[in-house]
Amino acid sequence: MSSSDIFIGETIGTAILILLGGGVVAAVTLKASKARNAGWLAITLGWGFAVMTAVYVAGPLSGAHLNPAVTVGLAIKDGDWSNVPVYFAGELLGAMIGATLVWLAYYGQFQAHLTDREIVGGPDAEDSKAKAVEAQEKGAGPVLGVFSTGPEIRQTVQNLATEIIGTFVLVIAVLTQGLNDEGNGLGILGGLIVALVVVSIGLSLGGPTGYAINPARDLGPRIVHALLPLPNKGGSDWGYAWIPIAGPLIGGAIAAGVYNVAFA
Amino acid sequence: MSSSDIFIGETIGTAILILLGGGVVAAVTLKASKARNAGWLAITLGWGFAVMTAVYVAGPLSGAHLNPAVTVGLAIKDGDWSNVPVYFAGELLGAMIGATLVWLAYYGQFQAHLTDREIVGGPDAEDSKAKAVEAQEKGAGPVLGVFSTGPEIRQTVQNLATEIIGTFVLVIAVLTQGLNDEGNGLGILGGLIVALVVVSIGLSLGGPTGYAINPARDLGPRIVHALLPLPNKGGSDWGYAWIPIAGPLIGGAIAAGVYNVAFA
Amino acid sequence: MSSSDIFIGETIGTAILILLGGGVVAAVTLKASKARNAGWLAITLGWGFAVMTAVYVAGPLSGAHLNPAVTVGLAIKDGDWSNVPVYFAGELLGAMIGATLVWLAYYGQFQAHLTDREIVGGPDAEDSKAKAVEAQEKGAGPVLGVFSTGPEIRQTVQNLATEIIGTFVLVIAVLTQGLNDEGNGLGILGGLIVALVVVSIGLSLGGPTGYAINPARDLGPRIVHALLPLPNKGGSDWGYAWIPIAGPLIGGAIAAGVYNVAFA
Amino acid sequence: MSSSDIFIGETIGTAILILLGGGVVAAVTLKASKARNAGWLAITLGWGFAVMTAVYVAGPLSGAHLNPAVTVGLAIKDGDWSNVPVYFAGELLGAMIGATLVWLAYYGQFQAHLTDREIVGGPDAEDSKAKAVEAQEKGAGPVLGVFSTGPEIRQTVQNLATEIIGTFVLVIAVLTQGLNDEGNGLGILGGLIVALVVVSIGLSLGGPTGYAINPARDLGPRIVHALLPLPNKGGSDWGYAWIPIAGPLIGGAIAAGVYNVAFA
Repeated sequence: MSSSDIFIGETIGTAILILLGGGVVAAVTLKASKARNAGWLAITLGWGFAVMTAVYVAGPLSGAHLNPAVTVGLAIKDGDWSNVPVYFAGELLGAMIGATLVWLAYYGQFQAHLTDREIVGGPDAEDSKAKAVEAQEKGAGPVLGVFSTGPEIRQTVQNLATEIIGTFVLVIAVLTQGLNDEGNGLGILGGLIVALVVVSIGLSLGGPTGYAINPARDLGPRIVHALLPLPNKGGSDWGYAWIPIAGPLIGGAIAAGVYNVAFA
Repeated sequence: MSSSDIFIGETIGTAILILLGGGVVAAVTLKASKARNAGWLAITLGWGFAVMTAVYVAGPLSGAHLNPAVTVGLAIKDGDWSNVPVYFAGELLGAMIGATLVWLAYYGQFQAHLTDREIVGGPDAEDSKAKAVEAQEKGAGPVLGVFSTGPEIRQTVQNLATEIIGTFVLVIAVLTQGLNDEGNGLGILGGLIVALVVVSIGLSLGGPTGYAINPARDLGPRIVHALLPLPNKGGSDWGYAWIPIAGPLIGGAIAAGVYNVAFA
Repeated sequence: MSSSDIFIGETIGTAILILLGGGVVAAVTLKASKARNAGWLAITLGWGFAVMTAVYVAGPLSGAHLNPAVTVGLAIKDGDWSNVPVYFAGELLGAMIGATLVWLAYYGQFQAHLTDREIVGGPDAEDSKAKAVEAQEKGAGPVLGVFSTGPEIRQTVQNLATEIIGTFVLVIAVLTQGLNDEGNGLGILGGLIVALVVVSIGLSLGGPTGYAINPARDLGPRIVHALLPLPNKGGSDWGYAWIPIAGPLIGGAIAAGVYNVAFA
Repeated sequence: MSSSDIFIGETIGTAILILLGGGVVAAVTLKASKARNAGWLAITLGWGFAVMTAVYVAGPLSGAHLNPAVTVGLAIKDGDWSNVPVYFAGELLGAMIGATLVWLAYYGQFQAHLTDREIVGGPDAEDSKAKAVEAQEKGAGPVLGVFSTGPEIRQTVQNLATEIIGTFVLVIAVLTQGLNDEGNGLGILGGLIVALVVVSIGLSLGGPTGYAINPARDLGPRIVHALLPLPNKGGSDWGYAWIPIAGPLIGGAIAAGVYNVAFA
């Protein structure tokens, strides 16, 4: 694969991943969406099929890493870091493009949702609590979750551990997948299997932190959230931003280490 | 493939697609249906498996486009427009047959549902709002949604953009699928993968407009809605009808353009 | 395939089909079940994966028809009726065994569920309506639905039409499936695809009648319901029993006719 | 396969199985989890994809039994018990590791959940019932279910029968799977198919006992529950522990017997 194919493939693929992944969160959480309150299962299947779609589109160009943690895991396994910067660049750019496309596709929904909560954090600070409750009853809520992840309980060690464990599962599954391939299907089936592994991680390990398990998936959209002219959008929670970067990279590296010891 | 095989395949396939796709909306929304209120995930899975079923049935006859946007995307990719009119004709006819079959299969449910809302729009115009609320409480609602799509927020630019983006994802996935095929499975697996791509688009991009992503899927049933003798059916919303035609055609054409530049 | 392999395969396969299919209805509807109120999507996925499991188990022995409508469709397609009686016998016996196993697996749940509604239809006939409401509030309901199907709206022509349409989709998909097989996967993939077709029919066409689409699936368990010593079980609704037999057989025959004209 | 590959494969694979399987129960039931109340379908899909992920990772090393009932079934089928102890050891150790990882990933959620129910079983025994109701209203509940299974209705014969029936379906499906393999896909597809069989068993037969269908899946995490320093964790229900061991082993043995008579 040429560097330009890798860059183009990762950019297009990660853009589709984040468009569909951020899209399902927008669909389920924003007001005036037909999918509103479709539930956690819809979100996890949505992210899984987002991975599947992106893998099949980008696969022929770049091998479809779409995730710096996967790129790092494969680099450690193969002992070849030469293309890592190109992969990283495409993944981050693609994630930013994808998040912007979510905003375009759900433009009216973002406006409707955020307009209803404009009272939160408004000038009458003393009434803010009552107004927040009122906004909650109206159905308005935060929109940062459409872009990037955040923990239910903010506890650095546990949050990091959860991201490490989740990404370990993803990367060990990606690395061992090749071992199942005897030229009769798994190479092709792989996109679907990896998608269902991501559904599995979402259902089983997504509860505490929202399973970033991918530094580009979290950082790219967080940057876009900070830049977009969304009314009343609130902060981008940069204090948490390092965890969904560090956790997945550590988890991917551990998976590659286990692979090299136990499976290679 | 002969023109008659194409026409027959597209007609049968699109009829099955709309029978099952419209059917799941009827199942989830009409009164006196066992599936009532089964939720958005049921609707998106229902449409996805409708695509899968139709693709496997029609595939051997016509290649199973079942969607003018796919037909246009493939014509641009291949530079061959000779069969496009035959595909279009079969797709539109099939969609109309499918929508009629939904009406047959759910005949009693349509009657039960529409009878309860006969008070809406009745002669006592001044009481219409109160009566609409009363009908809402009884569980009655519109039936146009069983046939064709409509936006949650009516905003031409956004509605068109959402349909363009959704169809772009569908058609780029269809076009790149061939690249994954190395003679060991994806050609056959393709029907399932495309179905799950459609589930993905539904979950992630269906919130604002109900994801037509297929001009025949929307126009054919809308014509049938206008013709059927349904009591109190209301209008067929022809003012919106051009968007789910133009949006998907534009999205499919853009996908073919991107394919020819980046993947071919 | 020998007659004994066919009989054994169809008996084991249909027993597994009905064990898992009736089981999911028991799981979702009976009291004291962890799956209670899991919803229509759970029921349709449960039936679909029941088909998948049964097809993979019985396939090597009998080809896994598991459904007289499929047997009839294949007999018409192939012009060979010699094994039809053996298939029918195994399918009916298997369905009865499966329904009995559901009763064993959910014995305590049936007892708990039916004990709470013993007041319905009891000696104090004049209080029956009030008591039925009371039982409803307690969560008790009918158990015939665990065994066989029944319509939401009892209307012979529509009920028959819905079963014909649903079974047509199933059998045309089964018949055309062979056309997709180029020796690289669909024969094997077929069990999964047929399962998802059944999920599709359930989601999209199951609303009015509960989608028997299989005479043995309905008749066998209905006989078992009539025979089992369930307290307060109520009638077995024999007046409806001919529709889920006739409808699927007609639908399967039409599908074979269409196949022979359009696809063969 | 060498004994060390078998042991390592079963340990890693069963650890992933229980991490993801116990994880989804934690995600759906514990407080302060984003997946809270995602429902029974989420739990059964979560366990199914847990099986899939674990099978694809461990398959190349150990063949991925991950379940003593499967190990026994295959030993009876093949008449070879030489590796059974190694399989058992890896499966039990892996299950204990997996349950410990669930605790790590959901550490804060366990704390939050159990702190709210500390009033249950506290020193004021006379108020316990009222306080249990109060805790219930607050949303707190037992956590043993995250580790091991328990019946809705405690009835030894039925509970044992349900586990036997469920495991019979699993093991007969695993054993017959090889018969479908003609060198073109099912060997590879098998991990996905077995996963969906497990989803099927969960949806259809999980209602009464929570479908252990695997002695290691139940015993390993129960031991961990007994050992972990969880506040207010309550007892580990050792009186029930023999049923999810005996039932699956009996069910697996019956399946192997049926296989050897009817399919071999």
